[in-house]
Amino acid sequence: MTRKIRLGAFLPGGGQHVAAWRHPDSPADGATNFRFHVELAQEAERGLFDAYFLADGLAVSFGGGMEGGNAKVAGFEPVTLFAALAPLTKNIGFIATASTTYEEPYNLARKFASLDLISGGRAGWNVVTTATEAAAQNFNLDQQHPHAFRYRRAAEHVDVVKTLWDSFEDDAFVRDKDSGVFFETGKLHLAGHRGEHFKVKGPLNVSRSAQGHPVIVQAGQSEDGRGLAAATAEVIFTAHQRLDTAQEFYRDIKARARGLGRDPAHVLVMPGVSPFVGRTLEEARAKYDRLTSLILPEDGISLLNGLTGGTLDLSGYDLDGPLPPAPPTEGMKSRQALIRQIADDNNFTIRQLYQWVASARGHFTIVGTPETIVDTLQEWFENEAADGFNILPPWLPTGLTDFVDLVIPELQRRGLFRTEYEGATLRENLGLPFPINRYAAARAAVQAAE
Amino acid sequence: MTRKIRLGAFLPGGGQHVAAWRHPDSPADGATNFRFHVELAQEAERGLFDAYFLADGLAVSFGGGMEGGNAKVAGFEPVTLFAALAPLTKNIGFIATASTTYEEPYNLARKFASLDLISGGRAGWNVVTTATEAAAQNFNLDQQHPHAFRYRRAAEHVDVVKTLWDSFEDDAFVRDKDSGVFFETGKLHLAGHRGEHFKVKGPLNVSRSAQGHPVIVQAGQSEDGRGLAAATAEVIFTAHQRLDTAQEFYRDIKARARGLGRDPAHVLVMPGVSPFVGRTLEEARAKYDRLTSLILPEDGISLLNGLTGGTLDLSGYDLDGPLPPAPPTEGMKSRQALIRQIADDNNFTIRQLYQWVASARGHFTIVGTPETIVDTLQEWFENEAADGFNILPPWLPTGLTDFVDLVIPELQRRGLFRTEYEGATLRENLGLPFPINRYAAARAAVQAAE
Repeated sequence: MTRKIRLGAFLPGGGQHVAAWRHPDSPADGATNFRFHVELAQEAERGLFDAYFLADGLAVSFGGGMEGGNAKVAGFEPVTLFAALAPLTKNIGFIATASTTYEEPYNLARKFASLDLISGGRAGWNVVTTATEAAAQNFNLDQQHPHAFRYRRAAEHVDVVKTLWDSFEDDAFVRDKDSGVFFETGKLHLAGHRGEHFKVKGPLNVSRSAQGHPVIVQAGQSEDGRGLAAATAEVIFTAHQRLDTAQEFYRDIKARARGLGRDPAHVLVMPGVSPFVGRTLEEARAKYDRLTSLILPEDGISLLNGLTGGTLDLSGYDLDGPLPPAPPTEGMKSRQALIRQIADDNNFTIRQLYQWVASARGHFTIVGTPETIVDTLQEWFENEAADGFNILPPWLPTGLTDFVDLVIPELQRRGLFRTEYEGATLRENLGLPFPINRYAAARAAVQAAE
Repeated sequence: MTRKIRLGAFLPGGGQHVAAWRHPDSPADGATNFRFHVELAQEAERGLFDAYFLADGLAVSFGGGMEGGNAKVAGFEPVTLFAALAPLTKNIGFIATASTTYEEPYNLARKFASLDLISGGRAGWNVVTTATEAAAQNFNLDQQHPHAFRYRRAAEHVDVVKTLWDSFEDDAFVRDKDSGVFFETGKLHLAGHRGEHFKVKGPLNVSRSAQGHPVIVQAGQSEDGRGLAAATAEVIFTAHQRLDTAQEFYRDIKARARGLGRDPAHVLVMPGVSPFVGRTLEEARAKYDRLTSLILPEDGISLLNGLTGGTLDLSGYDLDGPLPPAPPTEGMKSRQALIRQIADDNNFTIRQLYQWVASARGHFTIVGTPETIVDTLQEWFENEAADGFNILPPWLPTGLTDFVDLVIPELQRRGLFRTEYEGATLRENLGLPFPINRYAAARAAVQAAE
């Protein structure tokens, strides 16, 4: 089978761009408008996207500030939202972000397993450690745990969750009305986990879904983050502005995965891309300029501060001067470095910097025609920089509709993208293997050795 | 307006009765069959029930044991399930159980607020402290916290959640595209909570719904439980076998609520009722006997042990002999007392006891015709024992369909129950007041005083 590009769609109802809600095409209340999310999910499914992806933060200032211009101050908890969207769609997957720092493994395992059952095996979990002080202060802490601590906890957390997801073997349920045997007790397993951060006896009280486990997604870029991603992730969401850094990341992750005994083909690297699509380059540029003109300076400054984990207080600096140095952070280490790299590479002023990152928070912004945009995606896909992309339409619904109507057909014309869904589950569409239940696998191994 | 009976429906897909899944009418996989839950929700809505209610436990042994006959070993997390059912229904409310002991207030507040937004104001939270050792062992504990500790934590937890739900005032969102003002910063409020169990700064990143807050439901029967219910609950789910104990509870709760400055009419007491409905008494009895005949003895014993918080190990006892004494528990104190009362009142053997509680886990089982059943409900409703009832159909879907087709019309004929939904939100249908945002109320009070 020819290798195909995988596509995720980031569709926060309020739009990705900091000023998206001010766009004439966008509903101003999109972030909290459930019916609008239904429309977005169905539109993304029309475009044959693999998954609807939502980021998440456990504080109001996530994705912007509290200065009054932030349309992302309020929204839906992603798993709850996706559960509601699942019965209204058929094929598209749902990748929800959830925190290993502020959720208990048992609760997290349950809600994702429930979503996976409800959707017929279309759930994914984007594993994050939640790197803001604002979130820490909503969870009994005065300041957040150190970066390394959060990643150790994350590794253990993911391990516990995956163990819990295997509590029931796939054929555990006999449901024999005559004998009264509902399940085989030998196919229900305790987790019995006792580690540094968690003690979880199990079993989980949810059965496995059609795809076995929800797909594990990760986005860490730091050393700790790459280690976790290579060890556990099946899809890696990453932020790069240039082919060379994307290639470095891609090769590094694949090498790490191989070193850990994993098949690198089962670790999909998917950089974020924020596309402004025009039938001509002028039309695309006009769309970019239109949105840029809607950014209030205070929202731009607040965005830069939020993206760097609240460590970049630019009040008092000249917006048309250079970016000042920032203190070290226990927050979003790699995002802070990326923002600085963008400023340095482009010799941006503060204003130019926030205008550039406003569309996708540091992800790769492409302004072009369907042909030039697909040229870039194809170059990255064919040169060890990407197995697919997470598309972050700058504003909604038009940013998404443009991509579905203009870019998807060009990808299909070149044979780079599906013309229909291959399978019923997210795993099948992504070409990821079904995770054999660990207890069934162990028994099979023992039987084979006997 | 004439006072009407309120009705909740307990509809776990696997059925309420321990042997429900073995009934020929029931799908054996009901507990994990999403489409079956859609059917149940729509059927309950056809019956004009106020709410679909789901209990919950954070362990596999909730509602039964791990002996192989328990159809409740696996199911859905209630909020995730209800989110999926919400867009497929219009009027029925969704009361989900969630734990103050094992969930963080910020996460819990978020998921319920999200469900409330998605459903257009139809969510309710059944506040529980989760009283089993099995659950404790899934959350980093070797044994559960003492009963009194759990209830202190619950009181603080509910307070934090309700404060978070008021983070945004109802008119905080300006969403003015021209000026770029999305919300009024003065109408977004920090919780700033620092208590014995929680430090939560806030604000919550979800806006209020059409009903302001999800409805608060509680089911505590012990001294601590009654205190919490009188202070915070708007609906109280309770278990009584006799009019006199139901009246004692009803009057006590209303007096406590009045003593705390609350309007007793806004604290709805709703005992559980498990009905076996027949067109004749013989038909009803035959339905009861049919289900009883399907109980395996080991499942009956396991049920009694589960209902008493895992403290009643009956293995080795003569099933046709009396119930032995049980040790004290930090678990379900009041449920343990209730089970013993049922045994004593009826002079039941162990076998007779589990057969009786098998249908509704200690709730009031009524075997009768629509007329005799409504006679009983009316007697309780008109004599200070109940403001409504939580109906626990013993098996599904027929136990529910029987109630909708036979009992609801009799209730309506007597003018005791609605003939159409009064409102769009759960609060409106229950006749509960809209909770004014605390910050808006405080400002209004200051302005009135000036």
